[in-house]
Amino acid sequence: MNFLEERIVKDGIVKKGNVLKVDSFLNHQMDIALMEEIGKEFKRRFGDREVTKVLTIEASGIGIAAFVAKEFGVPMVFAKKSKSINIDGDMFVAEVESFTHKNKNQVIVSKRFLSEGEHVLIIDDFLANGCALQGLISIVESANAVVEGCGIVIEKGFQFGGRVIRNLGYRVESLAIIDAMDSETGIITFREQ
Amino acid sequence: MNFLEERIVKDGIVKKGNVLKVDSFLNHQMDIALMEEIGKEFKRRFGDREVTKVLTIEASGIGIAAFVAKEFGVPMVFAKKSKSINIDGDMFVAEVESFTHKNKNQVIVSKRFLSEGEHVLIIDDFLANGCALQGLISIVESANAVVEGCGIVIEKGFQFGGRVIRNLGYRVESLAIIDAMDSETGIITFREQ
Repeated sequence: MNFLEERIVKDGIVKKGNVLKVDSFLNHQMDIALMEEIGKEFKRRFGDREVTKVLTIEASGIGIAAFVAKEFGVPMVFAKKSKSINIDGDMFVAEVESFTHKNKNQVIVSKRFLSEGEHVLIIDDFLANGCALQGLISIVESANAVVEGCGIVIEKGFQFGGRVIRNLGYRVESLAIIDAMDSETGIITFREQ
Repeated sequence: MNFLEERIVKDGIVKKGNVLKVDSFLNHQMDIALMEEIGKEFKRRFGDREVTKVLTIEASGIGIAAFVAKEFGVPMVFAKKSKSINIDGDMFVAEVESFTHKNKNQVIVSKRFLSEGEHVLIIDDFLANGCALQGLISIVESANAVVEGCGIVIEKGFQFGGRVIRNLGYRVESLAIIDAMDSETGIITFREQ
């Protein structure tokens, strides 16, 4: 087990309905030393790529992406979620469905912060059905920028998002891929990588 | 002028209606080197205080608070905004009015991440009318924890939030206090500190 899998086993809580709570260290309270370690690990995994910008989506991606951007020495941009906005032509927009909240959101990034030819590393905390990640990829493509890869902290391997995005040819690196979890026993099964 | 005031003059854009756009370095695209400098500056200003936790509010506070927490070597917690949630008794809740969006939001923090007697430094990107900050203070007080101070990146000194919160006895440190700005000329007047 790597450092993240160990932390998930130690502090993650498996709830009914395939819900994994990691709010004590990742997405409500943040362990900053862990964030730094995650930043370094993504730098190691994507160190062969030219990265000029790190892109994530609010809110819980921000803390993680900031430390990845620090390692690469590049700016970080976070996409904003908006129910309905007046698009003024200055924004890249993608429509994203949320399975958790059963609604649709627009995800927006100002055109000033994604330029043609830019090399983008996309970072997010979770990958499940892949809707948010597809939205971010579509925004990068709209900008005629290059998706250098997608760095995910926790992938739910039993949902289809990761497979779809890898099949589309994108490089996805997940620090932990969960193949199964059991809310009765609390046992989490990680994929061997 | 300090490093932040210089950056605001260089890259901030004054819009009509007393709007200051700093989205190229602070709240959409983030300059990570600047975030680190902000983290160090708040450590310098609040270094005399015992701090066990940094508290902020999603979304744009997260990137700043993460680097402040790094300097203090403590966890960071970000409060979540929610329109209507089923409060299950496990949450501290404050009602916060948004002048920008003309609506009310609930701001919530899990009781697991704010304990009695904890020493909390509150961090946010903007202070204007002070509603968000008052919500965060009220959450800390609900937890019987101690507000050690409030660190603000940009305070709109011509609005009343900073005065109200200082009058209540809280220590507020703002890296830049704007006393006036002119959308015609682009001139920003900072308060001497």
